[in-house]
Amino acid sequence: MPEVVVDVVLKPEISDPQGQAVLGALGRLGHSGIRSVRQGKHFVIEVEGDPDEAELRSIAETLLANPVIEDVELHLPTD
Amino acid sequence: MPEVVVDVVLKPEISDPQGQAVLGALGRLGHSGIRSVRQGKHFVIEVEGDPDEAELRSIAETLLANPVIEDVELHLPTD
Repeated sequence: MPEVVVDVVLKPEISDPQGQAVLGALGRLGHSGIRSVRQGKHFVIEVEGDPDEAELRSIAETLLANPVIEDVELHLPTD
Repeated sequence: MPEVVVDVVLKPEISDPQGQAVLGALGRLGHSGIRSVRQGKHFVIEVEGDPDEAELRSIAETLLANPVIEDVELHLPTD
């Protein structure tokens, strides 16, 4: 069954306390080469038949993400 | 600066109430072609210099994910 992946990430101008907490923890643990961490959501969606890109984009942008503060990356299966 | 993406997904045998809630909502909204939704976490990590795959895999598997219930997908930048 085709799998579509939707990644929801905070817009760059929105501060990300979760990512900053991870970054701080990595620094304290000695991982000094890490410059930034941003945390988002990752959805794996199984669809029946051929994925309808327009429908999936609409689902991603209106139901999975908050378009005021988040951007969406839609990854359709590569045939 | 190189960006490494880490996707953390629940193992297939672990139930996913968040994903099931999204699936239920999509069904009620008329998106009947969606068969399953699984929700995970998506990290975008900026590293200084060349990414050290072993270090990043260790960070992903021990600090970003709970290896008892989650799997990790590491995506290094393609040169």
